[in-house]
Parts: sequence; structure tokens; C-alpha cells
Amino acid sequence: MTPEPAALARADSLIRTIPDYPEQGVLFRDVTPLLADAAALRSVVDAMIAPFEGRFDVVAGIEARGFLLAGAMATVAGVGLVPIRKAGKLPRPAASVAYSLEYGTAAIEVHDDIAEGTRVLLVDDVLATGGTLVAAHELMGAIGAVVIGTSVLMELPGLGGRETVGDVYSVFTA
Amino acid sequence: MTPEPAALARADSLIRTIPDYPEQGVLFRDVTPLLADAAALRSVVDAMIAPFEGRFDVVAGIEARGFLLAGAMATVAGVGLVPIRKAGKLPRPAASVAYSLEYGTAAIEVHDDIAEGTRVLLVDDVLATGGTLVAAHELMGAIGAVVIGTSVLMELPGLGGRETVGDVYSVFTA
Repeated sequence: MTPEPAALARADSLIRTIPDYPEQGVLFRDVTPLLADAAALRSVVDAMIAPFEGRFDVVAGIEARGFLLAGAMATVAGVGLVPIRKAGKLPRPAASVAYSLEYGTAAIEVHDDIAEGTRVLLVDDVLATGGTLVAAHELMGAIGAVVIGTSVLMELPGLGGRETVGDVYSVFTA
Repeated sequence: MTPEPAALARADSLIRTIPDYPEQGVLFRDVTPLLADAAALRSVVDAMIAPFEGRFDVVAGIEARGFLLAGAMATVAGVGLVPIRKAGKLPRPAASVAYSLEYGTAAIEVHDDIAEGTRVLLVDDVLATGGTLVAAHELMGAIGAVVIGTSVLMELPGLGGRETVGDVYSVFTA
């Protein structure tokens, strides 16, 4: 169900901007006040589901903040939940994909709990350059799943994420 | 709403046991097949809420696997969501509590998004020795919140967790 614009505007107003975090010159957008408010949380969860409603079988959330939203979205949408974890956290990873960070590389992994052809909605809190989400697409492909779209709470424009990731919906733009 | 025993028995059957992980002699209980199943996920989320229904204002989940369940529980119960994070992940921690691990120490932190007296249900995936959950109780007290209980998906008996943490409900015992 698409939430009312007023509900989303109120949720947006709860996001706190913290200057110079994690480094000088960066404006960090802190969403924990929004999450702590029941009505605001529900409005963004509904908004993140709405564009993809009825088209996905599971929600796959990216560790760690993506887990908060993905858990909520999976139960509200009535589908299953797949955690995409940082390397080394899963006992029986079925696939692993490395990707570049600003300095160095990281990798994400997933179990093989879903059948081939399962329709996946990817979920994370923030879309920046899109590096992690592109890796997550590849990861889902490696276990035979089909990514039908990506939903994030907030998009940081000007970093190329939207062009890289493809079919992405963001509730807010920073 | 309390789920049917048959639904929980089915959810339990989806938990996979992995021998010798993370080290020789340990039986790791892997819950990702349960999470990936929509009906099983919903049954454990309902079970984790039921004993505390109507008595809490927010769900506080412990990073990282606790986030998956806490997000689901918060939206199903219609309350807010508070992430309890590992040290160094939050831009404006209001409190920090250190605790002992098998080797060394760790710390958890939280923001001050909830009003004094807010009633909190603590959530994590597994109760083992209870060290993290005891620290989480202390953390909630440090921001003036009131822990009304703790809900976990699985309890590992014989490690003293139940005695240490107090009012704890577990859906399954390993």
C-alpha cells in the first residue's frame, strides 16, 4: 500500500544530518530517529514495497543496516527473507562476490536457501556508488535467483549509483 | 497472535545443523532456511512477540542477525525499532557498554532516539552465555529506557544464559 505523502514528509523530517561524519566535509544522514518512530517506520517500509508489490518472492537484505528494513519488508509483504552477509559470517556460503571499496576490496556471501528462479527484491538503507548492490545482483545470479528490482531508503545523488544499479527505487534523496 | 504448534514445528524442521562450525566439536544451528520461508518466518516472529504483546513501545535488535528479527517484529507489533550496534558504527552514540567475549572484549552502542521510560523488548537470534544481552540491558538503562523482556529465536542450554539475562523467551531450544 502506497503511504500518504504527508506520512513520508513526516518520516523525512525525522532524519538527522550530522556534519563531518565519518570524515570532514561529509554530511551523514542518520535514519535511526525515523526507525524508532512506529508510524514513520511503517510508512517507509510500505513505500519501499509499493513499486514492486506482487512481483517478488523474497526480500534480500544487505548486512547490516539493510537487515533492519528487509526484515520489516519481508513480513509486511508476506514473503521470505534472505540475508546477504559480509564474507566469513556464513557457515555454508553458496556464492561469494568481491567488489571494490574506496580503499581495498570487500566481499559478500549468501546461502542457497532459495530455489532457482526465485524473484528477489534487493534492499539496503543507502544507495551511494552502487558497488555493493551491483555485487549483490551478481551474487543472486550466482545462486540462480532473479533480481526484479532494488529498494533503498535513501539515495545520495551524483555518485552514479542509479546508473550502475538499474531498476532502483529510493524513498528519499539526500 | 500465538502461532499454531504445527507451524512452529515446521519452522523448527527448517533449521539446519552444521557440525564443527565455527570450530571443531561445535554444532552450529543455521536459521537462514527458516528465514527464507515466508510462513516459517511469520510464525517465529509472532511467537517472539506473543509473550510480551502490548507491553513494549519499541523493539531493540542487536547487530547483526538480531536486526533481521527485530525489523520484522517491530512492524508486525506496530512499534518503533532501535538498532543496538557494535562500537564505532554510530555517529552520535549516547551510551556504550563493554562486555567480555571468550577471548578479549567488545562493546555495543545506541543512539538516544527514545524518551525516558520507553518500554523496550530486546531481541537477538541466539541466547548463549547471555553476555551481549546483559550488556544490552545495561545500555538501555543508560539511556533511561526500561527493558520489559528479551526474546530470542533459539536458546543454547547449559551455558547459563537464561539465569544471567532474566525474563527471556526463546522459541526453540537447540
